Amino acid sequence: MSKQLPVLESPTAGSCCAPIAEEALDAVQAAPLAQQFKALGDPIRLRLLSRITAAPGGEICVCDLTGGDFQVTPPTISHHLKILREAGLITGERRGTWVYYRPVTDVLKGLSGILAGQ
Amino acid sequence: MSKQLPVLESPTAGSCCAPIAEEALDAVQAAPLAQQFKALGDPIRLRLLSRITAAPGGEICVCDLTGGDFQVTPPTISHHLKILREAGLITGERRGTWVYYRPVTDVLKGLSGILAGQ
Repeated sequence: MSKQLPVLESPTAGSCCAPIAEEALDAVQAAPLAQQFKALGDPIRLRLLSRITAAPGGEICVCDLTGGDFQVTPPTISHHLKILREAGLITGERRGTWVYYRPVTDVLKGLSGILAGQ
Repeated sequence: MSKQLPVLESPTAGSCCAPIAEEALDAVQAAPLAQQFKALGDPIRLRLLSRITAAPGGEICVCDLTGGDFQVTPPTISHHLKILREAGLITGERRGTWVYYRPVTDVLKGLSGILAGQ
């Protein structure tokens, strides 16, 4: 049995806006994007996200994210995963004992597109 | 007479790494990237950056960034511009009374590329 973890907040997808090389952002557009970039603005979160995006099969078990070379405690890992989830960058699904994480590719593509076209 | 403002710190350009869809980041790669994403993680800074990147002619006078619809004081604008400069996302050049800002396109392209390829 699987259970999709609730999305605690749901910022507008990164695909909201034209590339910033073409058009300046207004306050309404900037707020959710800033939340998403802020979620990327921590080395541990960025590494966790990259482990999730680079995972073979498109998902990774939380059991493969804790420990290893991160040198932070499992609760700290969970805290960072929650921030990534709240920013809409990843989703988590509980299956049995473990939670499995996937990237939200549309949102990541959107953020990429906003910075592209320089 | 023009004067290039000093670059206070110089993080590795965003083009350091493969897209995170292909390869996970290590701690050395993640640190400067996280600093750059953190600089983007504020609505005022994101809007300022977008005004700079979208400026006709590739640069904008600080006199066109203060006031208007930002509703923050000029010292606050200067503070945010300094953070963008320290993160290596923009450069500033003083010419006479005013400072003119340009985007560092290679770094912005690099950040875009890291999030691309999902």
